[in-house]
Amino acid sequence: MRKVAIISAGLTKISRHWDKSLQQLFAEALDKALASTKISKADAIFVGNMCAQDLSRQNNLGALIADYSGHLPATSIRIEAACASAGAAILTGYMAVASGLYDVVVAGGVEKLSEMNTKYVTEALGKASNVEYELFYGASFVSLNALMMKLYMETYGVDRTPFAEFAVLMHKNASVNPYAQLPFEITLDKALSSEYIAEPISLYDCAPIGDGAAVLIMCPLEEARKYADSFVEVAGIASATDTVDLASRDDILLLNSTKVAAEKAYKMAKIAPQDIDVVEIHDTFTIMGFVSLESLGVVERGKTPKYVKEGVFEKDGDLPVNPSGGLKASGHPVGATGAYQVAYLTLQLLDAAGKMQVPSPEYGLAQNLAGTASGSYITILKRAR
Amino acid sequence: MRKVAIISAGLTKISRHWDKSLQQLFAEALDKALASTKISKADAIFVGNMCAQDLSRQNNLGALIADYSGHLPATSIRIEAACASAGAAILTGYMAVASGLYDVVVAGGVEKLSEMNTKYVTEALGKASNVEYELFYGASFVSLNALMMKLYMETYGVDRTPFAEFAVLMHKNASVNPYAQLPFEITLDKALSSEYIAEPISLYDCAPIGDGAAVLIMCPLEEARKYADSFVEVAGIASATDTVDLASRDDILLLNSTKVAAEKAYKMAKIAPQDIDVVEIHDTFTIMGFVSLESLGVVERGKTPKYVKEGVFEKDGDLPVNPSGGLKASGHPVGATGAYQVAYLTLQLLDAAGKMQVPSPEYGLAQNLAGTASGSYITILKRAR
Repeated sequence: MRKVAIISAGLTKISRHWDKSLQQLFAEALDKALASTKISKADAIFVGNMCAQDLSRQNNLGALIADYSGHLPATSIRIEAACASAGAAILTGYMAVASGLYDVVVAGGVEKLSEMNTKYVTEALGKASNVEYELFYGASFVSLNALMMKLYMETYGVDRTPFAEFAVLMHKNASVNPYAQLPFEITLDKALSSEYIAEPISLYDCAPIGDGAAVLIMCPLEEARKYADSFVEVAGIASATDTVDLASRDDILLLNSTKVAAEKAYKMAKIAPQDIDVVEIHDTFTIMGFVSLESLGVVERGKTPKYVKEGVFEKDGDLPVNPSGGLKASGHPVGATGAYQVAYLTLQLLDAAGKMQVPSPEYGLAQNLAGTASGSYITILKRAR
Repeated sequence: MRKVAIISAGLTKISRHWDKSLQQLFAEALDKALASTKISKADAIFVGNMCAQDLSRQNNLGALIADYSGHLPATSIRIEAACASAGAAILTGYMAVASGLYDVVVAGGVEKLSEMNTKYVTEALGKASNVEYELFYGASFVSLNALMMKLYMETYGVDRTPFAEFAVLMHKNASVNPYAQLPFEITLDKALSSEYIAEPISLYDCAPIGDGAAVLIMCPLEEARKYADSFVEVAGIASATDTVDLASRDDILLLNSTKVAAEKAYKMAKIAPQDIDVVEIHDTFTIMGFVSLESLGVVERGKTPKYVKEGVFEKDGDLPVNPSGGLKASGHPVGATGAYQVAYLTLQLLDAAGKMQVPSPEYGLAQNLAGTASGSYITILKRAR
C-alpha cells in the first residue's frame, strides 16, 4: 500500500452563497488549493455532497464538476454518506492514491443549503435518518440530539452550563477563523438564555447550516515533494457504521461507529489516543461534541463537562478541540464539512493556521459523522518532515 | 497494487418490486452472492444508487444497507455517478481491495424506479444532465438520443432498420435471461412499427427502467481461492468524463469518455480491443449501443449496421454483444445497471451463464455510462485459471 500525502487545502468561506452554483463553489476551492502546488490537472476527483439532488435539482456532480473546473477527462464521482459525505470522499481519495490507480487526486465536498426554504432543507437533511423509523414520525436530528442531551445530563448529573461553555469556546475560536460562518464571540449568559429549539437544546447548542466547498489535494507520499514545498501525511484513516436509527442502540451516549473507526485509525497510525495533539470533531450540536470526544477515547466518559470548565479544550490547552470553531460556530455545510475539518488540520500541521494555530501539533484527528453517527469517518494526519 | 478478483455475483430479477424496499433488494442480491462463498461478513460495501433521494425519500443508503443486511460495522458508502453509479461503485470497490485497506468488499447497485409516477422519474433521471443547459429547456435523455440517432442515420446513410434489428437481437437474448425485465422476443416488423417516443426513436429502441439490485464480491486475487472455488480476475478498470451537455462536444457520435476510459483499461489489461470475447454495453437506446461499440474500438465507426445484419453480435458470432439482452431488453435499473453488466460477465467467464452462455470467453468488457456519456466506467474481466 502506497503511503498518502495531502499537499494542499482550499476552502471557501462558509456563508450564504446565493450568487454561486455548486460547481462554482467547488472550482473556487479547487483553484485555491492548486495555486500552491505544481499541479494543473487532477487524475481523479471525489466530490462529497448530500443535498444537490433535493435542493439544486442536480445529480451527476462528479462529471459536472470535472467539466466546469477544467479537469476533463478525469475520473470524477460524487460520494454520499449524508453529513459525512466529504469524510467518505477523503477515504475514497485515499484508496485511489494508495491503490496505485491514480496519482494526483482531489477529494473534497460542496454543499448549498441556502437555495431553498428551511422546510425543504429539514426534509432533505432528514433523509440521513432511517426515514421509515425516524423522519416519518417527526424525529428530526435536533429532537434526536435533544434525547441524547437529556440522557447525558441525567446520567452525569450536569445542567446545561457545560454545553453552553463549550459553545462559548467554539464561538471564541471561530471569531479568528477567516472561513467561519459565525465569526463572533458570545457570552455564557447569552448561550444559556437563548431560545429552546428542542428542549434542552437551545439556539446556541446548534451548528448553523451553510454553503461552502473545501478540497484537499492528495498524492503518493514519496512523490509529494515533487508537487509541493510542504505537505502532511495521512497516517491513519478508517470508517465504520452503526444502526441508522438511534433507538436500536444499546447505549446512545457511546457512538460505536466512532469508537470502532477511531480504534482502527489509531492502530493504522501506530499511536494511542493520547498522542493526538488537536482534534476537529463533528459537533452538529454541543451534545454530539461531548459524546464524540468520549467515543474517540480522547476524553474519559462523563468527563467532558469538567474539562470544558478547566480549559483543557482551549487552543493552548492539553487537547485543543476545534480550533476552527467546529461545526458549532464555523458552520456546517453538510456534505462539505468533513473536508473543512481535514483542511483545517492540514493548515494546523503545516503551521499555517494563522490565528487558529495551536502550538506545534504532530498529530491531528478529524471525526466526520453521518446523522447520529450511523457512519463515522476518522482521518489522522501527521506532520511530515 | 494488489490484483483483484470477483468471486461471486448476486442478482435479483429486474422488475417492478412494489413489495420490496431498497435495502431489501440489496440484501437479497448480497445474500445470494455470499451463498456460494465462505464469507459471512463484508469489510466494506459500496452501493451504487442514483434516485433514492428523489423517489424513496431516503439518503445515507450505505449505512442503511450495512445495518439492514447484517454487515455492521463495515464501511459502507453510497456512490453516485448517475446511470453509472454501480460502475463507479465497482471502481471504488476495486480501489478498496487494491489499496490493501479492505479485504472482502461488496460492490453493487440498487434502484427503485417504480415507486413513483413517471413524471417524477423523468425529472429524477433528468438530473443526470447538465440541468441548467439541458433539462431546464426540456432536453430529456430520449430527445438527446434522438438527435444522435438522426445524425447517425444521416452520416452513414442508414434508415431505422439496423436499430430495429439490434432491438430484435436484444429481445432474443433477454428471452433466456432469468433476470430480464422483458424476457420475450419481438419481430422486426413489430420493432419498426412501434410508436415514436421522440422521432426517430420508437418504443422498441428504448430500454425499460426497472427495480433491482446486483452485487459483486471482491477480494485480493491471491486470496480468492480461500473464499471461493471459482473466480474471475479484474484485469483492467478505468473511468473518464466528458462535457455533461451533449451540445458542447465536437463529435456527438464519438463518446470520448468511453474512448479514453477503454484505452486506459485495455492498457491496464495488456490487451487490444480485438482480444475482447464478449461485451455488455450501455444501450439505453439502440443508438447509444451503436456509438458505444464504435467508441470502445471493438467496431469500426459506421460499421455497426453492417455487423448487426451479418449476425456478428449474436451469441455465437465473432463479437457477442449483450448476451443478457442488454439494458434494451434485460432492463435498466439505473444506479444498479453497471453491477448487472459485470455480474453477467462474471457468470460468462465462469461458464455459469446458462442459456445466456457464449462459447468459452477469455475476456469480457462492461461499459457503463452516466447520461449521454458524461462519464464512462469500463471493467475488463479475465478468466482465472
